[in-house]
Amino acid sequence: MLGNFIYHNPTKLYFGKDAVNSLKDELKNYGDNVLLVYGGGSVKKNGIYDKITEIFKECGKNVAEVAGVMPNPTYEKLLEGVKIAKQHNTDFILAVGGGSVCDYSKAVSVSVHCDEDPWDKYFIRFEEPSCEIVPVGCVLTMAGTGSEMNGGSVITNHEAKLKIGHVFGDDVMPKFSILDPVYTMTLPKYQMCAGIYDIMNHICEQYFSGEDDNTSDYISEGLMRSLITSSRAAVKDPQDYEARSNIMWTATWALNTLVSRGKTTDWMVHMLGQAVGAYTDATHGMTLAAVSLPYYRYIMPYGLKKFARFAVNVWGVSPDGKTDEQLANAGLDAMESWMKEMGLVMKISELGATQDMIEGIADATIILDGGYKVLDRGEIVDILKASF
Amino acid sequence: MLGNFIYHNPTKLYFGKDAVNSLKDELKNYGDNVLLVYGGGSVKKNGIYDKITEIFKECGKNVAEVAGVMPNPTYEKLLEGVKIAKQHNTDFILAVGGGSVCDYSKAVSVSVHCDEDPWDKYFIRFEEPSCEIVPVGCVLTMAGTGSEMNGGSVITNHEAKLKIGHVFGDDVMPKFSILDPVYTMTLPKYQMCAGIYDIMNHICEQYFSGEDDNTSDYISEGLMRSLITSSRAAVKDPQDYEARSNIMWTATWALNTLVSRGKTTDWMVHMLGQAVGAYTDATHGMTLAAVSLPYYRYIMPYGLKKFARFAVNVWGVSPDGKTDEQLANAGLDAMESWMKEMGLVMKISELGATQDMIEGIADATIILDGGYKVLDRGEIVDILKASF
Repeated sequence: MLGNFIYHNPTKLYFGKDAVNSLKDELKNYGDNVLLVYGGGSVKKNGIYDKITEIFKECGKNVAEVAGVMPNPTYEKLLEGVKIAKQHNTDFILAVGGGSVCDYSKAVSVSVHCDEDPWDKYFIRFEEPSCEIVPVGCVLTMAGTGSEMNGGSVITNHEAKLKIGHVFGDDVMPKFSILDPVYTMTLPKYQMCAGIYDIMNHICEQYFSGEDDNTSDYISEGLMRSLITSSRAAVKDPQDYEARSNIMWTATWALNTLVSRGKTTDWMVHMLGQAVGAYTDATHGMTLAAVSLPYYRYIMPYGLKKFARFAVNVWGVSPDGKTDEQLANAGLDAMESWMKEMGLVMKISELGATQDMIEGIADATIILDGGYKVLDRGEIVDILKASF
Repeated sequence: MLGNFIYHNPTKLYFGKDAVNSLKDELKNYGDNVLLVYGGGSVKKNGIYDKITEIFKECGKNVAEVAGVMPNPTYEKLLEGVKIAKQHNTDFILAVGGGSVCDYSKAVSVSVHCDEDPWDKYFIRFEEPSCEIVPVGCVLTMAGTGSEMNGGSVITNHEAKLKIGHVFGDDVMPKFSILDPVYTMTLPKYQMCAGIYDIMNHICEQYFSGEDDNTSDYISEGLMRSLITSSRAAVKDPQDYEARSNIMWTATWALNTLVSRGKTTDWMVHMLGQAVGAYTDATHGMTLAAVSLPYYRYIMPYGLKKFARFAVNVWGVSPDGKTDEQLANAGLDAMESWMKEMGLVMKISELGATQDMIEGIADATIILDGGYKVLDRGEIVDILKASF
C-alpha cells in the first residue's frame, strides 16, 4: 500500500552530449556573482573547466572559486567555502563534479546566510535552513549519488569521526543539473564501479523494506535490471555511450525520492558504510559494497519474501521448485557474482579498516529502524567483523 | 541509447487519503478569483464539491464555476469556459475531476488571454501559448490520463470530426495536483477499467518503439508489472485501497514524460482511438482497448524482438525453447487474456462504430512515424475492419 506522501522535484535536467550548451540560458536567471565549486584537477585536464569558464565570460559573470573539494567533503572545507561565498556576495553556486561537489555546494548554499554553526544545525540537529538559500546548479561529471536531483548533502567531521547526511527540502535541490554522459567517461574504472554500486545500493536501501505491494518497488526492479545490463556493458567497455548514458540516468532516479514514495526504507548499509568512511576516508561506493553482503545475508531471514522476489524479478532466477530461502540465497549469490564482475571491494579490511577500529566504527554507526531487523550494537560488530 | 533530452516536471503532488487538506495552503499562492471546473454531478454526490467549496470559503476566495465538462471536452465547451473565465478575471483555475476536466482546464488556461482562435492555434497549428497562462491546480477523481502531471490537453471538435491532443510545455503543467485514491472509488467499474487500459496503453505507446537498450523501457516494464498486479486486485475488489493507490500512482508516471525520455515513441493506438472517439464519442480508454490488439498483432513482425521482450519481462512468459515469434505471440495472448479479465471492449463495433464510418475514421486518423511500421491508409482501414 502506498502511504501518504508529497512528491515535488522541480530540478530541471539537461541530459546528453553537449548538454552544457544550455548553461548559458540558465545562468541568465541568476545574479552576477557566481561561486564555482569543483574538486581535484580532473575538470581542468578534461577541458570542462575551460568550457565553463568561457561560458561565464560570455555571460559577464563575476566568478570566485572553491577548488579542491575532496571525495568526502569535510566540515573544515565547508567553513572555508562559506567564507569565500560570503566575501564574494554570492548570488549563485555552480557545482562542477560528482556527488561530493554537489553535496558540498548544497551545504554551502544553506550556510552562507546562517548565523549558527552549520555542522550543529544541519548534521547534528537535522534542522531545515531558516535563512536565505543561495541557489545551486550542477554540471555532473560522475554518476552515482543522485545529488544532482535531490536535497541530500553528506559532510564528514574528522574530529568527531562522523560522516552524516542530511536530506534537505525542495528549496535546496539544484535548480538545474547538466548531465552529459561523455563527462563521466574520463573517470578511472575504480570510481566508475564505485558509482555503479552506489546506485545499486540506493535502490536496495529503498527496496528492502516493507512487505506490501507498491508501485515504487516495481520501478526499483526496473531500475536495477537496467543498471545490471548497462553496468556489465560499461565494465567491458567504459567508452560505451549507451551503457554510460543509461547508468547516469538510472543514478538520478535511484535517489531523487521517487522510488521511496509511499513506502518504508532501510538505509542501514549507508549508516554502516558512512561510519567506515569516517574512519578510513575510503571511496563511498566501495564502503557500501564492502558491508552490503554481510548485512543482507544477516537480515535475509527476516525479509525472506522480499529477498525471494528480488531473486526472481531482478536477477531472473527461476522460481521453479525452490523454497523462498533457496531463492533468496540464489538472489544474493547472483548479486555477489555481479559485484565481483564489477571489481567491487568486498571487505572493509581492503579499505584500510583494522580490527582495532571495529568498536569505534560501531559507535559511529547510526542505527535506523526501517529494515527487516533493527540491529543492536552486537549485531553491528558481527557484521563489521564479517567484512574482514 | 538515451538520446538528448530535457526533463522538467515541477508539478507538486499531494498523494493519499485526505490529501485535499493541503488545498488550503496551496490556494494561498494564488489570487482571489478562482474558476472551479468540474464534470457531471458525481462530485456533488460524493461530497468532494462540498469539501472544496468549504475550503474556498475559509480562504475567502471569489468563485465562478464551469460545470458539465464532458468526457470528451468539446471546442464549444472550451469557448464557453474561456468566456466565463474572462468575465471573472480569473487568477487561478481548479480542475476537480478526471483527465477530461484537467485537460479542459489547461485548454482554458492558455486561451483566456489568447487573441487568436484556440482550436486553430493549439490543436491545428500546435503552437505554444504566447499569452499569459492562468495557473491550474487539480483535484483528481479518476486515474488514467496522467493529465495531473503533464502539459497534455485533448479537445474534440465535432463539426470537424476531430479529436486532437496537444502536449504543452512545463508552464502549462498543473502547479499542484491532489491525488486521493479514495476519490476514485466511487467511479463505476466500466470507467475504472477504461482508465486502467488508458494507463497500460500510455506505457505501451512509449515502450513499443526503438530497439536500443535504455533505462526508460525498464522503468516502463516495472510500471506495467505493477499495473497488472494491482488491476487484477482492483477488478476483484474495487474498494481495495492498496490496489487503487498503486493504479493512481502508476497512471501519473505512465504519462508525465519520464518513460519517453531519450527514446522514440509510437502513439498510433491513440491516433486510431481518438479518431474512433471523434465518431462515436465513446469512452477514451475503451476506444484504445478496441483498436490495440488488431494494431499490435499487425505490427508485431516489424518489432519482433521488443514484443518478445515484452512477453518475458512484463508477462513472465518463460523463454525456454521458444522462438521470438512464439514469445511475441504469447505476450500478446497474455495481454488479451488480461484485457478480457478487465472486461475491456475489444471491438469498435461495440462502441457504436459502424462499417460506413470506417473510411471517415481512417481519414481522421493522424499517421505518425515512431512505431515499428509506418502505416498507410489501407493498413489503417484493415486494422479498423479487424476491430469489428
